[in-house]
Amino acid sequence: GIAADRLVARLAEHAEIGATPDGGVCRLALSDADRAGRDRLVAWMHELGLTVQVDRIGNVFGTRAGSEPGAAPVMTGSHLDTVATGGRYDGVYGVMAALEAVRRLDELAVTTRRPIVVAAFTNEEGVRYQPDMMGSLVHAGGLALPDALDTVGIDGTRLGDELVRIGYAGDLAVGAIRPHAFVELHIEQGPVLEAEGLAIGAVADLQGISWQEITVEGQSNHAGTTPMRLRRDAGAAAAEIVVFVRELALRFGEPQVATVGRLRLHPDLINVIPARATLTVDLRHTDEAKLQQAEAELAAFLERLAAERGLTVKSRRLARFEPVVFDQRLVRTIEAAAAARGYGVRRMTSGAGHDAQMMARIGPAAMIFVPSAGGLSHNPREHTPAEQLAQGANVLLDVLRRLAG
Amino acid sequence: GIAADRLVARLAEHAEIGATPDGGVCRLALSDADRAGRDRLVAWMHELGLTVQVDRIGNVFGTRAGSEPGAAPVMTGSHLDTVATGGRYDGVYGVMAALEAVRRLDELAVTTRRPIVVAAFTNEEGVRYQPDMMGSLVHAGGLALPDALDTVGIDGTRLGDELVRIGYAGDLAVGAIRPHAFVELHIEQGPVLEAEGLAIGAVADLQGISWQEITVEGQSNHAGTTPMRLRRDAGAAAAEIVVFVRELALRFGEPQVATVGRLRLHPDLINVIPARATLTVDLRHTDEAKLQQAEAELAAFLERLAAERGLTVKSRRLARFEPVVFDQRLVRTIEAAAAARGYGVRRMTSGAGHDAQMMARIGPAAMIFVPSAGGLSHNPREHTPAEQLAQGANVLLDVLRRLAG
Ligand SMILES: NC(=O)NCCC(=O)O
Ligand SMILES: NC(=O)NCCC(=O)O
Repeated sequence: GIAADRLVARLAEHAEIGATPDGGVCRLALSDADRAGRDRLVAWMHELGLTVQVDRIGNVFGTRAGSEPGAAPVMTGSHLDTVATGGRYDGVYGVMAALEAVRRLDELAVTTRRPIVVAAFTNEEGVRYQPDMMGSLVHAGGLALPDALDTVGIDGTRLGDELVRIGYAGDLAVGAIRPHAFVELHIEQGPVLEAEGLAIGAVADLQGISWQEITVEGQSNHAGTTPMRLRRDAGAAAAEIVVFVRELALRFGEPQVATVGRLRLHPDLINVIPARATLTVDLRHTDEAKLQQAEAELAAFLERLAAERGLTVKSRRLARFEPVVFDQRLVRTIEAAAAARGYGVRRMTSGAGHDAQMMARIGPAAMIFVPSAGGLSHNPREHTPAEQLAQGANVLLDVLRRLAG
Repeated sequence: GIAADRLVARLAEHAEIGATPDGGVCRLALSDADRAGRDRLVAWMHELGLTVQVDRIGNVFGTRAGSEPGAAPVMTGSHLDTVATGGRYDGVYGVMAALEAVRRLDELAVTTRRPIVVAAFTNEEGVRYQPDMMGSLVHAGGLALPDALDTVGIDGTRLGDELVRIGYAGDLAVGAIRPHAFVELHIEQGPVLEAEGLAIGAVADLQGISWQEITVEGQSNHAGTTPMRLRRDAGAAAAEIVVFVRELALRFGEPQVATVGRLRLHPDLINVIPARATLTVDLRHTDEAKLQQAEAELAAFLERLAAERGLTVKSRRLARFEPVVFDQRLVRTIEAAAAARGYGVRRMTSGAGHDAQMMARIGPAAMIFVPSAGGLSHNPREHTPAEQLAQGANVLLDVLRRLAG
């Protein structure tokens, strides 16, 4: 198997890049910290003798050659970017474990028939620039490169400019590398594996994701002098939306989830009725029909609310992905590899979006999950014990060997 | 009467200081724009031959001498600071009209028995530093100077440092000037006078004001992977508070108003369940008992919400003023002055807080209101027609003459 200490040490070293005082990581896509994280990865890829290529959307690929000329590579990897209050494992674990697996193959002097490509995709988190999984989405042809480059972030920056600024606007054509198969190792980011005492999740499918930004326009006025009946309070209406969205999820029942993560008021002053509110709604379900129903109910609610309160309510789509079913053979390969090592394994659904979800559009893809302590993720206290990190990497190693032949 | 053109021109000139592209004014307390606005006022005071004094909290006083040695002055004025998205009249109108009245007295060669003091109080709006009406509150002895100077603003600055920075930490002892009476001219900032077609409001009383900042602490986690039942969503709870506060006001009925003007989420990211929410609640009522009941119901709601949702909810008082009844004789003087000029006048309640409310603690005080077009205030489109501005200033002139003898 892989060398657990080495993997843990690499993760700790990489977690210093963008480290936050609370033990977490802030490495927003295309920030200076992202650049530093990429530079470190590229240096480590070179150390392993991989051929490094960067494509026009900034995806980084490190290729270990195979023995059969022209054979499509097996691709693995994930992403290096984090949310602003992220942990030390989301994304980077899959990339570091892939490097460790390649290093182990070298040590074992294993030559595979197919090349093995370690990938780090651009802007998976989608918090600075929407949509999420953008690098893999562009790779898979789901978003045109010019549109991706023109994306304006929450800080007003243009993605393409930031890519140039950090030196990762590469020249490889997007989608140039067509893998034979894609397998991604990731922390679960949820409570299931830990609760069931299992080491490995063989991810069989993923939820659909619907992201929208809602803008409510009312009228600012004086908080002391304006009777309730004369108000056009954008903040109060935004609060109704937040409450509605949560109650919708409770009404639909599991696995429906719904989240308002961002909410801003303007002018955001104690004695001024808010003129404008901007909020995001994140809806997810494994069932596309349910997801559509949730979207429709929200849209109807927004229309009623606007009419009742004399407000303008607009919605803008930020991301929309249908639920995805992974390649069943690949899922079975993962289950078999886990079982062969005696690890407890189950099939499961991913609640989070992943690059593998995009890669599934252009070939067989699947994922390996390891437990997240306390089900915490997108939280500085995100944690997975070293032993479990190693178990996941071992399964990845075995699956790569098997797929690459 | 006063010269309307001159008053309107002065207001227009002063509105250039901190002017915003939408026609409004941003002159936050103790900002560079506030400094510039004060400098202009002081220059105009000097032009009129007033004796200018600045006290330790930055209140500016310009005194026109009276004929009787040792007679307590009649004080008038208001404030120059605005909210961040303010209009061109809130506060500054009362100061500019007072200057115009003094100028008119000079032109008419009127000598009054009592001195007349034109005041501009520090930080009336209370949006950058709480509480509001701070300069007049300190003047009236309701807040100790050191506490006022130590106030930390929403931008993290210390009020005392900003006062020094803009050069308005004066050396006059606070409260040194004890007026015989205080009369403040102000725009209504509400819809009443316009709706009733009246020129003048004789303000008889003011609502009580209760300001608090509520902080909700939950736990950030992944928006896609965290089932609804396992969430400790600070943002969703904050939204419940906003909705509760509005419904409380509707349930209590007029004149109860309740506003959440500020609301911030942390980390404020699309796919992260909010770990923390901070919001302000502004409750106002003319009846102190009702105000206390509203506060108690909110406190009980916060306790229930915290328990139900597994959250920590804390509240911090930012301002608390009981309802104030103005001096009845002074109110009658204002009514009589308006009637004598043939202006439509009514007694009314102020929904907004005012410096006169603080000055009422140390002597007879009252206010003159003029209409606000569309009832708009704390809005860049705040407006009062020139004729009405002149009518208010005329009433002020007559009342000052009468009070100063
Ligand atoms: N795995 C992960 O956290 N992806 C970010 C996109 C999302 O699911 O919100
Ligand atoms: N008059 C006025 O707007 N005062 C500010 C304090 C408040 O009433 O909110």
